[in-house]
Amino acid sequence: MQKEDLIKVYHRVAPHVHKTPVMHSRLIDEIAGCEVYLKCENFQKAGAYKIRGATNAILQMSIEDRSKGVVAHSSGNFAQAVALASKNLGIPAYIVMPSNAPKIKRLGTESYEGIITECEPTIKARESNSKRIQEETGATFLHPSNNLYVIHGQGTASYELIEQESDFDVIITPVGGGGLIAGTCLFVSAFSPSTKVIGAEPFAVDDAYRSLQTGKIETNETAHTIADGLRTQLGDQNFPIIQKYVDQIIRVTEDEIISAMKLVWERMKIIIEPSSAVAVAAVIREKEQFNGKKVGVIISGGNVDVESLPF
Amino acid sequence: MQKEDLIKVYHRVAPHVHKTPVMHSRLIDEIAGCEVYLKCENFQKAGAYKIRGATNAILQMSIEDRSKGVVAHSSGNFAQAVALASKNLGIPAYIVMPSNAPKIKRLGTESYEGIITECEPTIKARESNSKRIQEETGATFLHPSNNLYVIHGQGTASYELIEQESDFDVIITPVGGGGLIAGTCLFVSAFSPSTKVIGAEPFAVDDAYRSLQTGKIETNETAHTIADGLRTQLGDQNFPIIQKYVDQIIRVTEDEIISAMKLVWERMKIIIEPSSAVAVAAVIREKEQFNGKKVGVIISGGNVDVESLPF
Repeated sequence: MQKEDLIKVYHRVAPHVHKTPVMHSRLIDEIAGCEVYLKCENFQKAGAYKIRGATNAILQMSIEDRSKGVVAHSSGNFAQAVALASKNLGIPAYIVMPSNAPKIKRLGTESYEGIITECEPTIKARESNSKRIQEETGATFLHPSNNLYVIHGQGTASYELIEQESDFDVIITPVGGGGLIAGTCLFVSAFSPSTKVIGAEPFAVDDAYRSLQTGKIETNETAHTIADGLRTQLGDQNFPIIQKYVDQIIRVTEDEIISAMKLVWERMKIIIEPSSAVAVAAVIREKEQFNGKKVGVIISGGNVDVESLPF
Repeated sequence: MQKEDLIKVYHRVAPHVHKTPVMHSRLIDEIAGCEVYLKCENFQKAGAYKIRGATNAILQMSIEDRSKGVVAHSSGNFAQAVALASKNLGIPAYIVMPSNAPKIKRLGTESYEGIITECEPTIKARESNSKRIQEETGATFLHPSNNLYVIHGQGTASYELIEQESDFDVIITPVGGGGLIAGTCLFVSAFSPSTKVIGAEPFAVDDAYRSLQTGKIETNETAHTIADGLRTQLGDQNFPIIQKYVDQIIRVTEDEIISAMKLVWERMKIIIEPSSAVAVAAVIREKEQFNGKKVGVIISGGNVDVESLPF
């Protein structure tokens, strides 16, 4: 994408989202051995970067299509993001949520006036319910990560980051469905071409790591990670972008994720979710690689059930 | 105190502390029915406003006295604040800590190179140990709240707040030993005289509320509150200031403190300690009084043991 088009995306999304702060802590720098700047999308509307992509995708739809609404299936942050983006833009949002979705995310989605359909907690049930709602209402389906408009919207977080702080050697994002890292690649390669983009992933769901090795989209056999936002796999829209720009995915253990989360909570007094802690853990695990460098980390969100913490 | 003198205090303290951000959330506004701005001293160095007062007090000492160091007794935030302020200013800090002080505060004090003396968890043991260290080392004793220089330093948080956001109807601070609210009164009455200063206190330790009623410093019979920073009582240096400027102390229940803390954690994604939640709880409890007003809240700190939460 051309620079001008990316700037258009930014100006399309910006009025509807928060320009989140970039936070920095000398203590974290000391522990990591490098300069670490956190782009705090945990302070974003609905508690995560996802509203950026949802907003961009909705604003790309025709007025007629918009009036029929959007449909998404999600157990988590994307449900809330689509509901809130739709509410902001005055259109209906049909959200298919599995019956085992965390109560707090369901309440959030309700508070943003999402029209919730509960289904069995299987991908099949989620997809068939979404399909049925599309047919009944004419609503447009929004994929949380494998949709180019969504991908472009997610990238606006990194555009802000490189405007707020310059000269990053590296920007690290967590990798789940691939939307955030692909969007980050597009903006960073255009506006800060000397900055490397690196992904971070739990060992338990290292599909992106394996996909880059084999050259095709790999899946995960299990989903046993605390980083609930990263259990998904890449898609055909974002994988080519990731292949082109990303040459390293750092994998971290569950213990490393929990320690990094606790470190940021205790030292920086901000609440980050496990999926975000994956990126912080990657910086600490690969200390030697980042020694003395300037590292940006996209803190993807802060939606945690504070009544059930891993520490 | 004259405006010029207060400004001198501010410029003395400012280079050694963070200018903390002011945070605002539409969701919290909706719940409270007024505009609420949080002055985030949880992001302050050592995680609380206390370094402001410690820094001001140390900088008021002669160079010769400074070289002999300072001594303080504290189980909590003041210990860390004195240790870090002393480290920043290159002088020794002798900290007397009761044996039951939270481990995390002890580790914090150690990481700031405080020279710790452990004692029995009684006021008598704390005072006798401080006395002995004073005699042995010539160090100057710093009281956490009943010392005018400390009081002046604490007030600099509110000076920043009214510079960052103007036209407050009310500023609310938690009340423990009285240093924070007294310092707030001095700055706010000088620089924003139409703004009222209100205190917030747990019912369980409502000594300041009773002190204002009886006109003399009252004590607490018990200390059964989760707001561990507010178990102390007022002193003869700060009480006259509080009497002059404060005509309302709002008392809140333990349940209200815990709900307010959870609300801020979940909705604003920032970690505030129970003592700070007391001031947020006061706004919510007295909704009708604050309806439509612009309310500043001093979030005193964010030092919480995340492994042992009340929710």
